[in-house]
Amino acid sequence: MVRWQPDASLRLSEAALSLYAERGFDATTVAEIAERAGLTKRTFFRYFADKREVLFGGAGELRELFVTATAAAPASATPIEAALAAALGPAAEMFSERQDFARQRQAIIAANPELQERELIKLSSMAEAIAAALRGRGVPEQAATLAAQTAMTIFQVAFERWVDQPDPHALPRLISEALAELQALTAPAPAPLTG
Amino acid sequence: MVRWQPDASLRLSEAALSLYAERGFDATTVAEIAERAGLTKRTFFRYFADKREVLFGGAGELRELFVTATAAAPASATPIEAALAAALGPAAEMFSERQDFARQRQAIIAANPELQERELIKLSSMAEAIAAALRGRGVPEQAATLAAQTAMTIFQVAFERWVDQPDPHALPRLISEALAELQALTAPAPAPLTG
Repeated sequence: MVRWQPDASLRLSEAALSLYAERGFDATTVAEIAERAGLTKRTFFRYFADKREVLFGGAGELRELFVTATAAAPASATPIEAALAAALGPAAEMFSERQDFARQRQAIIAANPELQERELIKLSSMAEAIAAALRGRGVPEQAATLAAQTAMTIFQVAFERWVDQPDPHALPRLISEALAELQALTAPAPAPLTG
Repeated sequence: MVRWQPDASLRLSEAALSLYAERGFDATTVAEIAERAGLTKRTFFRYFADKREVLFGGAGELRELFVTATAAAPASATPIEAALAAALGPAAEMFSERQDFARQRQAIIAANPELQERELIKLSSMAEAIAAALRGRGVPEQAATLAAQTAMTIFQVAFERWVDQPDPHALPRLISEALAELQALTAPAPAPLTG
């Protein structure tokens, strides 16, 4: 395996995540993050607006990946498949290289109600952007909202399973499984057998 | 129809909602709400912790309705049906008497990002409580999360349609329609015809 030469942004992220895990998010200062990364506060602020941005700085890129893949999905894709196109492809690849980061990030967010709120808002804004992309494919207004929000639910559930299991490439499979599970959950109850 | 004798809490709510709609939520003070209701600030604070509580004070009651109905749904109900049992029954009845309030509230929330965040958090906390109730029915851990979040998505979409249409009793029908729509959206793409 090629050894990865961490750039300043990555070093700062890693330092921040270990400090958040050790001391809690609230108790960690930017000065401490910079110090642990062997960099200055000024360098920190070149990459991140504040210490929360270390956890949410990738949100714009992720939303972009989802929107682009939704728009580019084949015409034959169902709305849910189109909404999940990134999660099954480019986003899953991106995450497969960052599973440790993702796992640590999930644990930090789970420990902090304010960060959980931020995460909810991020997912909701992704759902809105995906819904807009679905409308661009001709999906009717409210079906697009339903499909996009459902896709985010599936992504979230699969993502939580993914961070806790060993194979970094398992995300697409876990998404397909969660989708199949949802199909089973929403299926009408079978009619009672007769005769 | 029997004329409803508004109590202090209701008068305060109505005064607050019209002020939020006229001036915006941020620009409205508790003193103004109390004045419009013909009551004192002290009375306001007997019913509401702050001006946001006017919009979110019912959240606990609503969550309770959902959780109770989920737990009490017949054993034959699918997890999604159990999660939606309140929305199809007691919660829909409660809302049918408050459609004007609900419509005004939706518009006020839609106009204010902070209130939107609060609403997201409310819905997420409801989804968690419903998921716990589903687990109490024997639904496996993650299926419960999927079903509860999906139920909240369906409820939200149906509720948004409901506030904007004339029949206050239409919510259960709109929920059934949204569920059917979701079933169609999650259905696997049909296999291409052959032969």
